[in-house]
Amino acid sequence: MAYNKKDFLDLKTLTADEIQYIIDSAQKMKYILLSNKSCLTPHLRGKTVATLFSEGSSRSKLSYELAAQNLSAKVISLETNQQFMKGESLKDVGKYIDQIGADFIVMRHPIAGSSHYLAKYVNASIINAGDGQNENPSQSLIDLLTILEIKQKFEGLKVVMIGDIMHNRVARSNIWALKKLGVNVNIVAPPTLIPRGIESTGVNIYTTVADAVIDADVIMTLRMQENRQKGYLIPSINEYKKLYKLDEQRLGYAKDDVIVMHPGPINRGIEISSEVIDGKSSLVDKQQVNGVAVRMAIFHLLNRSGGGLNIERKTFN
Amino acid sequence: MAYNKKDFLDLKTLTADEIQYIIDSAQKMKYILLSNKSCLTPHLRGKTVATLFSEGSSRSKLSYELAAQNLSAKVISLETNQQFMKGESLKDVGKYIDQIGADFIVMRHPIAGSSHYLAKYVNASIINAGDGQNENPSQSLIDLLTILEIKQKFEGLKVVMIGDIMHNRVARSNIWALKKLGVNVNIVAPPTLIPRGIESTGVNIYTTVADAVIDADVIMTLRMQENRQKGYLIPSINEYKKLYKLDEQRLGYAKDDVIVMHPGPINRGIEISSEVIDGKSSLVDKQQVNGVAVRMAIFHLLNRSGGGLNIERKTFN
Amino acid sequence: MAYNKKDFLDLKTLTADEIQYIIDSAQKMKYILLSNKSCLTPHLRGKTVATLFSEGSSRSKLSYELAAQNLSAKVISLETNQQFMKGESLKDVGKYIDQIGADFIVMRHPIAGSSHYLAKYVNASIINAGDGQNENPSQSLIDLLTILEIKQKFEGLKVVMIGDIMHNRVARSNIWALKKLGVNVNIVAPPTLIPRGIESTGVNIYTTVADAVIDADVIMTLRMQENRQKGYLIPSINEYKKLYKLDEQRLGYAKDDVIVMHPGPINRGIEISSEVIDGKSSLVDKQQVNGVAVRMAIFHLLNRSGGGLNIERKTFN
Repeated sequence: MAYNKKDFLDLKTLTADEIQYIIDSAQKMKYILLSNKSCLTPHLRGKTVATLFSEGSSRSKLSYELAAQNLSAKVISLETNQQFMKGESLKDVGKYIDQIGADFIVMRHPIAGSSHYLAKYVNASIINAGDGQNENPSQSLIDLLTILEIKQKFEGLKVVMIGDIMHNRVARSNIWALKKLGVNVNIVAPPTLIPRGIESTGVNIYTTVADAVIDADVIMTLRMQENRQKGYLIPSINEYKKLYKLDEQRLGYAKDDVIVMHPGPINRGIEISSEVIDGKSSLVDKQQVNGVAVRMAIFHLLNRSGGGLNIERKTFN
Repeated sequence: MAYNKKDFLDLKTLTADEIQYIIDSAQKMKYILLSNKSCLTPHLRGKTVATLFSEGSSRSKLSYELAAQNLSAKVISLETNQQFMKGESLKDVGKYIDQIGADFIVMRHPIAGSSHYLAKYVNASIINAGDGQNENPSQSLIDLLTILEIKQKFEGLKVVMIGDIMHNRVARSNIWALKKLGVNVNIVAPPTLIPRGIESTGVNIYTTVADAVIDADVIMTLRMQENRQKGYLIPSINEYKKLYKLDEQRLGYAKDDVIVMHPGPINRGIEISSEVIDGKSSLVDKQQVNGVAVRMAIFHLLNRSGGGLNIERKTFN
Repeated sequence: MAYNKKDFLDLKTLTADEIQYIIDSAQKMKYILLSNKSCLTPHLRGKTVATLFSEGSSRSKLSYELAAQNLSAKVISLETNQQFMKGESLKDVGKYIDQIGADFIVMRHPIAGSSHYLAKYVNASIINAGDGQNENPSQSLIDLLTILEIKQKFEGLKVVMIGDIMHNRVARSNIWALKKLGVNVNIVAPPTLIPRGIESTGVNIYTTVADAVIDADVIMTLRMQENRQKGYLIPSINEYKKLYKLDEQRLGYAKDDVIVMHPGPINRGIEISSEVIDGKSSLVDKQQVNGVAVRMAIFHLLNRSGGGLNIERKTFN
């Protein structure tokens, strides 16, 4: 088994074996992280990682940059807000970064499919760190690794997702991956926040949280953005909280050893109560080291698959 | 003697011995800097320093980042303006950075006490790079190291601070430290810019610069912000200059070998005249290498005290 | 032959031999880049490169930062927009960076001559990455290296520049250098965008593109900024395109083996047609690796010439 692709773009087109393989590699990277307080491995020595984030949030950018440095890579970061406004296409910016010698381009971009697009034009390995409302595959792998660590398996688990699946690319990646791995997936949200045709993936759609979470092994709460209200997608935040907030009572319907996850950033008291966040079932804020391990694994596997810089091909002569 | 704290938060709660110990260590770091033009020591090899600055000024951020790199640490930087606005608490952001593996978090935050608060929730060593109008302890150590280098002692010196002590956290840190070290401290400023109860620290309050600086060994001028005027704290900048600007004439009352310091950034011609800045007594712009030495010492001592990353404690299992 | 200057500020004051020497060195650096996919050389190990860019564009900043990291330097970056607004002079900021230990300061600043000015006050080597509308000498060396690689010589070539020479510092650097190297230089642009007195450099001024490009070996198209129109320097963008855009037809007047260059960022369809950009003569987007090689050479030559940090001189004692 090996990961033979140049890029890491989505989970939708990966096989169950490929997903499992990356998770296995992430577990090895985590072992390195845990057994060696001063983490600095030579896997990417001399290689260059470029980050190209067009959106504000920089939490996962930080995680990628640390993963790259843990592997001894050089890191360069392009603040893209200005660049994208400068009359240049994504293609031009991406080719520039490719030309100056990046082996990896970690990109977040507001348009779905943008990373697939750029991947065709550059020699560097593209890592999709979020493309519009499409996918955020590495974030999803973090969830999968965390679930595997606690539950020791995927097959037959019941995973429940509560909230704004429509606008959440991690939820979308998770659905693709979990179904491939043999997991039962229940989703529950206001009907306006459930993507059309989602039932074709094999998920079960519920209308009340109480019904959805019965005997759940894992509950994933999703960030609720207040401005959804202005878009008339939900009547009011208060009503959303009343119907969908995960609190102690609703958590009670799940299995005793249920685990609760949240991709962050959290709106405390909106999609999840502070009691649940800080309670015994919560993995919130306890899975972040997995983020670094997963990203180290992705870099390492792409590097081995030869997707990285082949600078000769890039020169004019 | 050792520095046994997990964090470096203030000078107020340190003993004279602890302060002296850090300064001694900074002198050793400075020797390393001066004797080795290509500074790269292994003290923090493989360790991770995260900078978390919520305020604009990035001069000291630069100094911290260079100090960390001089010690071979990895550096990651979170632009926090956006993050803090995203509905997350400082605690959530801090715990995230802690979880992904930061050994040190260097933070500047507008709220006094914020670094003490975060220090309780993370395994990483917190370094306070300025918390509101409370303290900026490393900046103060730079001043102390500089004074010691020139005057060879603290005991019995006369140090005068001129200007906006109310809003200056370095001045506050300096007062705590200098008094512990046996220094006579005079302060002079418009009454509205002198914090209430400051006399309990043992400083002497003066109303004219001429009186305050008689026989001074050290004069510290503080940055005057023009917008204080809008807050009705001073009648006008012109009147402030007339009464409090350090010029050649006022400097004449001090000892012949007086040294003049300014934490920067300077308003030339407002709190200090260009003649004095560029004159023989001035240490302005000549003490910056001490900033790197002090920060290298702080990183090193915290690292030795075991305050850094203990990643095992952070994982779920 | 050697490069014996402390700084790298312009091409105007360099000799043809010095320019040739830097290009030779860049070719060696490019060989290192191409022969070693994981580029990490020890040339600048332990040295510190500070970037100080006051303008938005960060493409060349990225190239400098990667070049510095390829040579194993430490890199620190000051976001200067805020700093320059804070009542400090460039001199104060530059001296601060110098004092904390930068060996190199790579600076871009809106005022012509600013890098020459700062160079007088600091021990660090200043690298001019663009000073107002004056020069951008490293960008010009990239063009020169690219021309030499394709044409194998400079002497006797015919190079044509089309467009806004007035506001383009790379064009200005190119004119100085190309004339020193024995190249025939034709320029063509709306009369309002041709700098007064430019004919004293020995360039030939043309009024139509067709006449200018006859038998050209190299055509350099320059970025046309739409806001020139608001400044009444050109009647309209449409008229500009009609008269000066490089399209297939106009390209036909040049030699068969003509090469077309553009410093980027490109306005596709304004100063150059998409067909030409993507055509067989185009070097656009194919010369970026030369940017890293040139900057590695500059760092290396300045480092050897001893222009870098001499931290002893900077301390107070």
